[in-house]
Amino acid sequence: MGLVVQKYGGSSVADAEGIKRVAKRIVEAKKNGHQVVVVVSAMGDTTDELIDLAGEVSPVASGREFDMLLTAGERISMALLAMAIKSLGHEAQSFTGSQAGLITDSVHNKARILDVTPGRIQSSVDEGNIAIVAGFQGVSQESKDITTLGRGGSDTTAVALAAALDAEVCEIYTDVDGVFTADPRVVKKARKIDWISFEDMLELASSGSKVLLHRCVEYARRYNMPIHVRSSFSGMRGTWVSSEPPGGRGGQSGQGEQSMEQALISGVAHDASEAKVTVVGVPDKPGEAAMIFRVIANSEINIDMVVQNVSAATTGLTDISFTLPKTEGRKAIGALEKAQGEIGFDSLRYDDQVAKISLVGAGMKTNPGVTATFFEALSNADVNIELISTSEIRISVVTREDDVNEAVRAVHTAFGLDSDSDEAVVYGGTGR
Amino acid sequence: MGLVVQKYGGSSVADAEGIKRVAKRIVEAKKNGHQVVVVVSAMGDTTDELIDLAGEVSPVASGREFDMLLTAGERISMALLAMAIKSLGHEAQSFTGSQAGLITDSVHNKARILDVTPGRIQSSVDEGNIAIVAGFQGVSQESKDITTLGRGGSDTTAVALAAALDAEVCEIYTDVDGVFTADPRVVKKARKIDWISFEDMLELASSGSKVLLHRCVEYARRYNMPIHVRSSFSGMRGTWVSSEPPGGRGGQSGQGEQSMEQALISGVAHDASEAKVTVVGVPDKPGEAAMIFRVIANSEINIDMVVQNVSAATTGLTDISFTLPKTEGRKAIGALEKAQGEIGFDSLRYDDQVAKISLVGAGMKTNPGVTATFFEALSNADVNIELISTSEIRISVVTREDDVNEAVRAVHTAFGLDSDSDEAVVYGGTGR
Repeated sequence: MGLVVQKYGGSSVADAEGIKRVAKRIVEAKKNGHQVVVVVSAMGDTTDELIDLAGEVSPVASGREFDMLLTAGERISMALLAMAIKSLGHEAQSFTGSQAGLITDSVHNKARILDVTPGRIQSSVDEGNIAIVAGFQGVSQESKDITTLGRGGSDTTAVALAAALDAEVCEIYTDVDGVFTADPRVVKKARKIDWISFEDMLELASSGSKVLLHRCVEYARRYNMPIHVRSSFSGMRGTWVSSEPPGGRGGQSGQGEQSMEQALISGVAHDASEAKVTVVGVPDKPGEAAMIFRVIANSEINIDMVVQNVSAATTGLTDISFTLPKTEGRKAIGALEKAQGEIGFDSLRYDDQVAKISLVGAGMKTNPGVTATFFEALSNADVNIELISTSEIRISVVTREDDVNEAVRAVHTAFGLDSDSDEAVVYGGTGR
Repeated sequence: MGLVVQKYGGSSVADAEGIKRVAKRIVEAKKNGHQVVVVVSAMGDTTDELIDLAGEVSPVASGREFDMLLTAGERISMALLAMAIKSLGHEAQSFTGSQAGLITDSVHNKARILDVTPGRIQSSVDEGNIAIVAGFQGVSQESKDITTLGRGGSDTTAVALAAALDAEVCEIYTDVDGVFTADPRVVKKARKIDWISFEDMLELASSGSKVLLHRCVEYARRYNMPIHVRSSFSGMRGTWVSSEPPGGRGGQSGQGEQSMEQALISGVAHDASEAKVTVVGVPDKPGEAAMIFRVIANSEINIDMVVQNVSAATTGLTDISFTLPKTEGRKAIGALEKAQGEIGFDSLRYDDQVAKISLVGAGMKTNPGVTATFFEALSNADVNIELISTSEIRISVVTREDDVNEAVRAVHTAFGLDSDSDEAVVYGGTGR
């Protein structure tokens, strides 16, 4: 048996009890014959408490010193976890991101990993230790300063280490059982997904699924590192995210194990964190859209969907709509208003009572009936569609925020994803 | 103006207000034209809270992981302090012990400093930054693991850094105004000492004075680094600890500044943390004392005073008494009882209701009346003496614990140390 990397989030190690429970689970993997490397986040609310403290001493909490401060959180959890493991009679050593060889660029608070040189970790596990590594942090190649990786950083640390150590799998432990076909709080009949491809997981992540962040999945895909997302509170199998189903594409184990064949549709995601901006009366000529999105980009705002209708023949004017995080709404409107003379549009509309519903599945590439079924389901549920945007393996629509739960349930049922249905794998439609 | 190292303890940075107050004081030194390097301890109770957490996950809190845990405390305080300084418009960078070049041996929880390579600190201050360094921690030369220096470690960090950076002075900020001629809680008329030699300070520290620990003074003496102990709550001049008085031995500034000439007697220290063990009826022959103290040493107990009386001519037996920390009493008695047959003594007496009073001053070497005055003062105060031990510049006695405050006051007055007396400098006696 080879090396596994396990990652535990802050809610799994929120207190001494949690740390002891996680320690037992880690020791189990070791007893099963694996070499074990563990990536751990800061305990529960530690990071928030440190951020509050920073706010008390300084109005601007950012940069080099903020990273130095926040990394204290993982230092505490990893040392405690190592102690808990030792008290179970197994050897453990904890390592900071710097000691573990997580080399990053110098962009404090949201550094990117440039390289992983896990020599000390490899030596430690080769000597029989369980290695505990601080998530979320690294050391900058240039200045040798401590950096943090920003949101989702601990998951990314785990995947990057797993890749560098040539691990069998990167297990991400969380407080849910895995990735579901829809948010179980909205869709009671949502099913846990046994296996999902990197591509579908990337689309789900960028469409509002919170279990894994886009950045971590992207890293895993680049290095072809299988991820197993599972609960730290149960021993259940969770969701495998990998290029091929365990056992090979289309393989059936026939041993009572669930089929790992990919369903036509992986799941339905939704996201109510975005707002919609419509630029009304844009002259329909080359360069107009470019001007609008240059203005937005210069304000460092990330946009999501972009839709442009054909122009009205009578006026030569068109409307351009796009979605963006609600938190960036004010900034975007301000920037566009300032540039109105230069761009030459009529007016702006801003709407933050919207939500996005996305259907994701590589299967839809070759199943042309999917789009029709999707729109029929929404129509039957009396949900009005305001924007549509599609990719090869995803369809997204924007609706009223009030309609979103109903819409997700309707689509989930229409594609046979409900847990009492047999249709999921065998669905095939006609005419997308 | 040159470089100064300032050290702030946990009580000075216990909360956001404290951190902001300390930040202002640091910026003042910078504005006065100094290069400033700051060594900081963990905030208030942070270290105790971390120790409690460790106790919750593991019965044995020690070793490598315990050091990793505890060093999180300074990481938090130093990052916050750097932020607070930046918000005052000055540049600051924080550094871990490892980044600051504090190289230690591999003895976790009480590592010794082997070398200081402060290249990054020097560069940082040369670039105009205020450098903030985590106290109490280093990195082991051999294993590259994080170590802590044990009790008094932050003071030692400050002195070691000051020596390596060739600083003008190492300022130790604390919650008292300096070193006093006696504990001001016991002796209301205790005086702040303006200057004291390394040697006298070492004797005071090992006799119960808590302001500076022995280890830090020893380090300062070895590298001849002046220490200025002063309050972080006032701008007052504190106590200088150095080989020569500022301005030269015997020099008088005559500019309204207080004389820095060393008094005959530096101060009176007391210590009620020790117990007394008497080994009764030891055969008075070579090797007996060695056997007793080998037994104690093998139990890793540090002893303080040792006294042996002449043996009674009739029996050929003698008594050997020694003092040791009360916390080690049970262990010492156990070890001696086990070895009773081998050593061949009659019985053991254990007494933890004792206290030690010490008079310290290099002046006593050449003033033979000191011992007599000391004993007369105790006698006049009706204090009975149980043990006596002397060094060149110190006399210590053990008395009943109940008598200790009265004894300290009597000695303090007898040597003209009271703050309304003129005698301190001019005292001279006859016949020690």
